[in-house]
Amino acid sequence: MENKIQNLLDFFEDHIELSESEKTFISENLQIEKFEKNDFLLKQGQISKRFFFILEGSVRLFYNTKKEEKTAFFYFENSFASSYESYTKQIPAKHNLQALEETEVVVITIENAFGLLNLSPKFEFLARVMMEEELSIYQDIIYSFVAQSAEERYLDLQQRNPDWLQRIPQYQIATFLGVSPETLSRIRQRIRSKDLS
Amino acid sequence: MENKIQNLLDFFEDHIELSESEKTFISENLQIEKFEKNDFLLKQGQISKRFFFILEGSVRLFYNTKKEEKTAFFYFENSFASSYESYTKQIPAKHNLQALEETEVVVITIENAFGLLNLSPKFEFLARVMMEEELSIYQDIIYSFVAQSAEERYLDLQQRNPDWLQRIPQYQIATFLGVSPETLSRIRQRIRSKDLS
Repeated sequence: MENKIQNLLDFFEDHIELSESEKTFISENLQIEKFEKNDFLLKQGQISKRFFFILEGSVRLFYNTKKEEKTAFFYFENSFASSYESYTKQIPAKHNLQALEETEVVVITIENAFGLLNLSPKFEFLARVMMEEELSIYQDIIYSFVAQSAEERYLDLQQRNPDWLQRIPQYQIATFLGVSPETLSRIRQRIRSKDLS
Repeated sequence: MENKIQNLLDFFEDHIELSESEKTFISENLQIEKFEKNDFLLKQGQISKRFFFILEGSVRLFYNTKKEEKTAFFYFENSFASSYESYTKQIPAKHNLQALEETEVVVITIENAFGLLNLSPKFEFLARVMMEEELSIYQDIIYSFVAQSAEERYLDLQQRNPDWLQRIPQYQIATFLGVSPETLSRIRQRIRSKDLS
């Protein structure tokens, strides 16, 4: 168990220095939890009491709409998944977080977060780093949905997140692009024929 | 000049206590700037060196796409407008900020921000409050674009931001909803007739 938490400690230590007692606090207080494929880490409408650091697996962020599910983002190992807004303001979450495969995470409850902030003000800095990361992701989501066509978004994926194309099922990629699986096939074919010409 | 900065001091004091010397520092170091209607506070692609606290007027956040401008948000008095991501990471901004009318703002440069953070760690807390606010706005933008129809978004506006409908020209509301001005008229008519029935 402790060597799994090590991934989180490594992530923290990319940003701040940790004393031995801080590492012990983290190892002793933060829980590891396993989700099966399709399990929900957070459901839209719930008030989020915890956020997650992914040790293994992947998580899909999606919105329920009247008609369909709209996928907005995918998270993989060594990243945080949350509804920051729901967590900090204790208001209903606007999105779902769902395991795409068997997924293991470190759970950070509100109590854990306060515990860390009490331990040292440097965790305040860490909180800001994480928030900045989430802001960037939201900026990307907005830009992608608002300003790009499905084909542009696919090309962006190829360039910036090739791992998504490897690891995520085609029909999920299609919901991310907002097109049918058939349209996705046509987009891929068009791009391939452009690459060859 | 100083009594205009007072609005910003009031905003700060909603969240933290300020000493007299801190108030003096803010009044002496932060500049007020005026933008004419349609002036850009920030252009997409620029690297943002400053953010803005609106004293008077309004600012539109929009994206350039190949085909058209996509409006995502409107800011009014006593709120911050920025590209937080561009500002903190010094990367090109993903959106434009444009004055919708004659608009007066307090400008906070990177040097100002560091000056404040050096003055007292409580400004770190303030930075987090502002970032949380921006995160919430982005969440709303995503939800609105991804999950709602134009009519749902209009109803949401009526309920949550009735001031937008008062103060923003119809054609801008239409670009926000992603519809033509004619479609917007039809939506309004449909809602009115529902209200009457």
